[in-house]
Amino acid sequence: MKLASLKDADPARGRDGRLVVVSNDLAWYADATHIAPTLQAALDDWDRLAPMLENLSTDLEHEMIPMRRFHEHDAASPLPRAYQWADGSAYVNHVALVRQARAAEMPDSFWHDPLMYQGGSDGFLGPRDPIPLSDESWGCDMEGEVVVVTGDVAMGASRDEALAAVRLVGLTNDVSLRNLIPAELGKGFGFFQSKPASAFSPVFVTPESLGDWWQDGKLHRKLMVDLNGQPFGRAEAGEDMTFDFGTLIAHAAKTRKLGAGTIVGSGTVSNRGADGGPGKPIAEGGVGYSCLAEVRTIETIAGGAAVTPFLKKGDTVRIWAEDDRHRPIFGVIEQTVE
Amino acid sequence: MKLASLKDADPARGRDGRLVVVSNDLAWYADATHIAPTLQAALDDWDRLAPMLENLSTDLEHEMIPMRRFHEHDAASPLPRAYQWADGSAYVNHVALVRQARAAEMPDSFWHDPLMYQGGSDGFLGPRDPIPLSDESWGCDMEGEVVVVTGDVAMGASRDEALAAVRLVGLTNDVSLRNLIPAELGKGFGFFQSKPASAFSPVFVTPESLGDWWQDGKLHRKLMVDLNGQPFGRAEAGEDMTFDFGTLIAHAAKTRKLGAGTIVGSGTVSNRGADGGPGKPIAEGGVGYSCLAEVRTIETIAGGAAVTPFLKKGDTVRIWAEDDRHRPIFGVIEQTVE
Repeated sequence: MKLASLKDADPARGRDGRLVVVSNDLAWYADATHIAPTLQAALDDWDRLAPMLENLSTDLEHEMIPMRRFHEHDAASPLPRAYQWADGSAYVNHVALVRQARAAEMPDSFWHDPLMYQGGSDGFLGPRDPIPLSDESWGCDMEGEVVVVTGDVAMGASRDEALAAVRLVGLTNDVSLRNLIPAELGKGFGFFQSKPASAFSPVFVTPESLGDWWQDGKLHRKLMVDLNGQPFGRAEAGEDMTFDFGTLIAHAAKTRKLGAGTIVGSGTVSNRGADGGPGKPIAEGGVGYSCLAEVRTIETIAGGAAVTPFLKKGDTVRIWAEDDRHRPIFGVIEQTVE
Repeated sequence: MKLASLKDADPARGRDGRLVVVSNDLAWYADATHIAPTLQAALDDWDRLAPMLENLSTDLEHEMIPMRRFHEHDAASPLPRAYQWADGSAYVNHVALVRQARAAEMPDSFWHDPLMYQGGSDGFLGPRDPIPLSDESWGCDMEGEVVVVTGDVAMGASRDEALAAVRLVGLTNDVSLRNLIPAELGKGFGFFQSKPASAFSPVFVTPESLGDWWQDGKLHRKLMVDLNGQPFGRAEAGEDMTFDFGTLIAHAAKTRKLGAGTIVGSGTVSNRGADGGPGKPIAEGGVGYSCLAEVRTIETIAGGAAVTPFLKKGDTVRIWAEDDRHRPIFGVIEQTVE
């Protein structure tokens, strides 16, 4: 089953969009607001409502109900705002590289104890919305990540219990203002100004519908990232993910329960190179990168200084994952910096 | 106008409670769900709905409408969950003391650039709910704070624009697990496991209704904190607040807009002593403290080790503010550790 939230004509009253079920090929949708007005409402009462949404999804695939053309441009993020956005850094390779370029030490515990920060969730960008940037000197970067949406998770849940609470899987562009990060981290209170609104893929998908692509709490597909129309990243999301989503969710739930609709992120998807070292750009036969910080890091390590600039006005980022016939699974995040 | 959210009989479907208007003396309430089903819904469309809620409040004061007894025990936190909980540390005196005891340096910039962390907001404790604690060794502490709820705030809003967006004022017990903080801050990603669910005062109040108590973006009342029935803190919330709420909100909105229903916290209320140094306990003629960490800090500085223990099972915390006739303004937060 694939779910999306269409933008409401009245944004003040319709801040959470209208819930729709989307066909597997993303071509059609059926209104689902008679079952739940919003995706959050569906997640709040999932055990009762999910079977009804599944039936609607089946009817849609069989073209047994009224259906309309699905346009990704009309979609908000599936949760246009959420009660929690907890972003991990599960590809520890990425963290090690970024720290190396900042000349910040990385404790060995980072390989055993997940890193996670509390992200802002009061309003997300839509998957085709521009990225608003007041000041290019802030060092705007994209971060291509995999995300899951959970149901209720009890305090102290085990990794397996946490994994069983995964309701939906999707992608995000976790926009980061790199040049604001060092000062914020130096204050010790985590990211705040350095993490403006993220954007999510047009549709979120149930783990069951992903089949073999969802295994061991990981998405086993390539995360495709293009920058200004050129291939930039093709990293395997299922590889080099030190902490699977069950482990990340259990980490988040160690001292408190998690509410339904919690979004948990993987952190920037990142693969090591074939030799175990930093990965290479696509042009040099590597799988590339899912954020600019990583290529800048590798440039810094190799040549003493970063060459690739951060995002400027007019730059366009595309993030998606595809099936074996190159059709997007979650739709496409495509954003231009404004 | 005073607003509260009564706990719903069906917690799965009624996660956001039922909006009620509460009389100024907190004795009576009138159902407001015909205007907005929840406080978040009211905040989402505030300009249109607030005048209707104000009329209801006036009618309630004049006993012109059906009214029922208001019991604080039946109240959830006014926003039982929120899209954003951004907690500042505006009483820099408190930060300086706590850092001193941890032997952590405090940069001078802390006096000019607000500290703020993104808190978890997916589920808050009710004002009379127990504090769930799995492990006493985590070092459970209360933090008495003032909070405001904002409407929509534009990216880059000025301090005055930010202050004009304050819709409601209340109190919180920002529960903290002190012994988990150093390791989390060492990881650089801010608080996560060390900040479990907070509880808020039974009612939130519009700034207009606070009259002179709300001035310059600060609440000018004493924050009353009792521990196990004994006076523990009587600090003046309007004093020693280095950053007012306008400044805190503008800080939060520097790189992104804030959604309606954002809760912004002051951080632990803390007053200097009469000599400008650390404050004294109430038993010694001081105004006491709004959290245990501060008294433990002062004990550490004075005697080399903290004497006052963190919260244990069965300990009870009371947090409130009162009018000149000793009646609670926002109701009372009263929680027992379980």
